[in-house]
Amino acid sequence: MDERVRDHARTLVEWSARIEPDDDVVVEVGEGAHDLGVAVAERLGETGANLLATYRSPEFQRAYLRASDGEFEPNPDYELALYERADSVLILKGSNNTAGSADVPGDVRQAHSKARREIREARLDTDWVSTQHPTRAMAQQAGMAYEAYQDFVYDATLRDWAALADEQATLKDILDDGETVRIRNEGTDLTLDIADRIAVNSAASVAYDSHNLPSGEVFTAPADTAGVVTFDVPMTIQGRRVRDVKLTFKDGVVVDFEADQGADVIAEVLETDGGSRRLGELGIGMNCGVDRVTDNILFDEKMGGTVHLALGRAYDACLPEGQTGNESAVHEDLITTMGEGSLLEVDGETVQADGQSV
Amino acid sequence: MDERVRDHARTLVEWSARIEPDDDVVVEVGEGAHDLGVAVAERLGETGANLLATYRSPEFQRAYLRASDGEFEPNPDYELALYERADSVLILKGSNNTAGSADVPGDVRQAHSKARREIREARLDTDWVSTQHPTRAMAQQAGMAYEAYQDFVYDATLRDWAALADEQATLKDILDDGETVRIRNEGTDLTLDIADRIAVNSAASVAYDSHNLPSGEVFTAPADTAGVVTFDVPMTIQGRRVRDVKLTFKDGVVVDFEADQGADVIAEVLETDGGSRRLGELGIGMNCGVDRVTDNILFDEKMGGTVHLALGRAYDACLPEGQTGNESAVHEDLITTMGEGSLLEVDGETVQADGQSV
Repeated sequence: MDERVRDHARTLVEWSARIEPDDDVVVEVGEGAHDLGVAVAERLGETGANLLATYRSPEFQRAYLRASDGEFEPNPDYELALYERADSVLILKGSNNTAGSADVPGDVRQAHSKARREIREARLDTDWVSTQHPTRAMAQQAGMAYEAYQDFVYDATLRDWAALADEQATLKDILDDGETVRIRNEGTDLTLDIADRIAVNSAASVAYDSHNLPSGEVFTAPADTAGVVTFDVPMTIQGRRVRDVKLTFKDGVVVDFEADQGADVIAEVLETDGGSRRLGELGIGMNCGVDRVTDNILFDEKMGGTVHLALGRAYDACLPEGQTGNESAVHEDLITTMGEGSLLEVDGETVQADGQSV
Repeated sequence: MDERVRDHARTLVEWSARIEPDDDVVVEVGEGAHDLGVAVAERLGETGANLLATYRSPEFQRAYLRASDGEFEPNPDYELALYERADSVLILKGSNNTAGSADVPGDVRQAHSKARREIREARLDTDWVSTQHPTRAMAQQAGMAYEAYQDFVYDATLRDWAALADEQATLKDILDDGETVRIRNEGTDLTLDIADRIAVNSAASVAYDSHNLPSGEVFTAPADTAGVVTFDVPMTIQGRRVRDVKLTFKDGVVVDFEADQGADVIAEVLETDGGSRRLGELGIGMNCGVDRVTDNILFDEKMGGTVHLALGRAYDACLPEGQTGNESAVHEDLITTMGEGSLLEVDGETVQADGQSV
């Protein structure tokens, strides 16, 4: 086994999820993430935590959803009971075909997602962490050779997270104190109200309210949004390509949208429910180990010099006690590169220019 | 996809497990059983049942157990809650290396098994069914080419189960009415007390108290055992080879044993707990689709013309209301071929001679 797989497992279990003896841990193993799963199992055994492995398969999902009549029992009891009692969920992504569930009708997918809201909430209430094992399919999606992609993944993942957490603390303080963020970029002039919201110093650990490995971003939950934003980073959403999405917001709601590719996917996302036309997240990428777009949200949104916005659900960590954020069955991120001439302003002060901190 | 994989899934979900709409189904997917899992997911979607897929990996198990200190929290709450609420557990075996956990110390394996007694009971209380997807590793264990092994598996599995159930009913009636079974064979003269015990017409369906696909056997739970038995069918138990095991029973308990190979494994099994030195099962193979030994208990014990005995746990289905059977953390089957000159007698009457019904 590549020693970096063991390092990845150690970082996940120790730094990210902070697993302790007797913790009840669900390990969700992607179709191509078996090797990382073995390394995680080893680490959990050493820690004295409990292990239950579930299988994360887009091909299972596709077969199940396509064969169904589109109606689903809400939040099946047995699965809800599992996640309500679990301490941690370690999600080991690792697809063998990133388009493996591309032909599931959007309405069926959404009906299934809606029927699982309580299960999703129960999972989010655990110390969950999502990470990525490098597979050939992911390398292909990134347009990279397999070995080069492995290097990319481990460069982005096996970092000095404590040091990055210190760097990000400055930006968190600015956002915590700020009331209004304005993003100016080519095709973008967007104003977001973040008064009273709490920014998360996302340093790849549940100890920092951060649930992605790799991470390396500072994010918050806007309460209101107005203006226009263009996302130049191409993405794959629900197995389909999306490119150059442009959203127009008024009073926090998307009132108009267009896309050079994948407009139908965006339309499906927007129509999911009442919250899917509103933003749940504003995030600022800070991970310099992510040095290119690889068509994978886990990495792309962390790239230094980018900003991302998510349609749908807000994370509780961004909300002060007593406030509720945007609620939705979806959380779909879209990314814009902060290029030359771009500005990120908080309460009229420039925080980043040309994608660089000032 | 080989159409027989879909037929297998249909047989499993419809005939074997009798899955109904809204049933809470756990699908336990072996490392090499992905394709069968996809077909089962499709069938569950069509039925309108709920699907939760777990991952059955000897490599996970090995890594976890070898890294542990050998002490385990009893029956972790989250896993127990899952199985207590599940209606069915579909176990899709399909190993990529049948020796994948061969180097786990026996005492650690047993400590883990003991710590999971309630979880095991909860699983056995569901409409569980265990089946086998043909993998190259299983073909290798059988000493067969892959395609020939696939043919073997589907010939044994895709049968007219309703017709076999009728055939087996006669033998069930004899065992239900009988008090004493005597098995005479080369190296074997064993007497088993089966008075009041209930024989199961195991026709590969929970509707027949049968939890294996394929099945094709009639089995009961002996209350007492005396004499000697030799098992000539070579087997793999806990990843290790066992050959020509000879057990001597007195007052229901193994008082002496020997083996040409794997005596250490047998010793470990016998030392598991108070019930592992007693028999939990007497089974008579009736499946003519199983025409050879393939070193796989699921098939071998069903072979027409064989008898098998299991050390350890008795199945509740064999026990009349109010009686308790043998209890143990293990259930390890051993098989003897009823060759020329062999006799299977019930209350002094010959039921089979030379491995054939008379």
